Amino acid sequence: MSSYYNKTRRVTVRRRAGRGKYDRATIDAILDEGKFAHVGIATDGQPFVIPVLYARSGDTIYLHGSPLSRLVKNLATGAPMCLTVTLLDGLVLARSAFHHSMNYRSVVVLGQGREISDRGEKLDALRMIVDHVIPGRSDDARGPSDKELKATEVVAITIDEASAKIRTGPPVDDAEDYELSVWAGEVPLSLVAGAPVPDERCGERIPDYLLAADGRG
Amino acid sequence: MSSYYNKTRRVTVRRRAGRGKYDRATIDAILDEGKFAHVGIATDGQPFVIPVLYARSGDTIYLHGSPLSRLVKNLATGAPMCLTVTLLDGLVLARSAFHHSMNYRSVVVLGQGREISDRGEKLDALRMIVDHVIPGRSDDARGPSDKELKATEVVAITIDEASAKIRTGPPVDDAEDYELSVWAGEVPLSLVAGAPVPDERCGERIPDYLLAADGRG
Repeated sequence: MSSYYNKTRRVTVRRRAGRGKYDRATIDAILDEGKFAHVGIATDGQPFVIPVLYARSGDTIYLHGSPLSRLVKNLATGAPMCLTVTLLDGLVLARSAFHHSMNYRSVVVLGQGREISDRGEKLDALRMIVDHVIPGRSDDARGPSDKELKATEVVAITIDEASAKIRTGPPVDDAEDYELSVWAGEVPLSLVAGAPVPDERCGERIPDYLLAADGRG
Repeated sequence: MSSYYNKTRRVTVRRRAGRGKYDRATIDAILDEGKFAHVGIATDGQPFVIPVLYARSGDTIYLHGSPLSRLVKNLATGAPMCLTVTLLDGLVLARSAFHHSMNYRSVVVLGQGREISDRGEKLDALRMIVDHVIPGRSDDARGPSDKELKATEVVAITIDEASAKIRTGPPVDDAEDYELSVWAGEVPLSLVAGAPVPDERCGERIPDYLLAADGRG
């Protein structure tokens, strides 16, 4: 298996090309750290961008949803789609307004979905989606009934065309701007998990896999 | 001015319709809290979804970027687009895998962009984008030069068709599942700002507007 996905022209990062990365290790790590993705489909030229949960296994991304959802129906029938995951790492404050930026790691995957009808693959994918959000959770939660399985469509997307775009580090100002007395640097941002809040009818002890969750896991 | 945006059929929330909101106050608050958006455009039926900074003023959203960027060029020429902002508020862990969910607030805006060529409106929009990310920052940073203004395209999108979708609260399990000894509840998530990190050549005191930044402001 190649250590690179397919760097086609349409996934090549053209603006700030130095920020583009194409190796699997980088792309997979961003997909694994993201909690949710934004998926775009287009109907008669009109794009729709919707947030979804997902999981990655090898070069496959799994999504799920109601078979009645427009997004899922489009994906299941192989409509061209774009899946984007963005991790916001910080705000970059340069001395000039022009050089303000974000530190971020994003992945864009182009391709098309296919419906998963095999019962075993569907069950595995649903476990992966639950475990992607909270590792270890699938062993605890009640698995899907036949009725629930029927009410859930699972879509697989093979990661073929994909790229990452990453910005890290301090602002880069024009040489003459370094003399200005303007604060410049980075404000780091991270997604942080608070203490788990049991629902009213939950008398269970907080499980270890939840105590380990740090919101970026 | 109506207190609702245009609830057309294509922005109406159909799945979990009770989660749909259409009033300006709700939609504007989500747009104002979000740090960045995912914008979708389509080229020959292929969607592309890209993260961007933005700001809202009244019923207008401003974006900026290089005039050479594919996204910005498409937006400036009025291509149909979708702008989505998603705030992830928590993971919802139900007793059944099926009822796992996220708590989130998202907004979808459909429409098209227009290029801002008026110098004054362009300068105002760029200040708003910087201040949206860090309120008060525009008064400190050096404003754009003529050359920088030329190298920046500003696109305005009138918020006309828009909807919000919001999930809050604990998991909702099937009645018989409440007997299971599975932990159930919410893991709250929030985007948190760390201490500002000055760049190597910055000798300035950390300004008050940065000390007030909490990453969600």
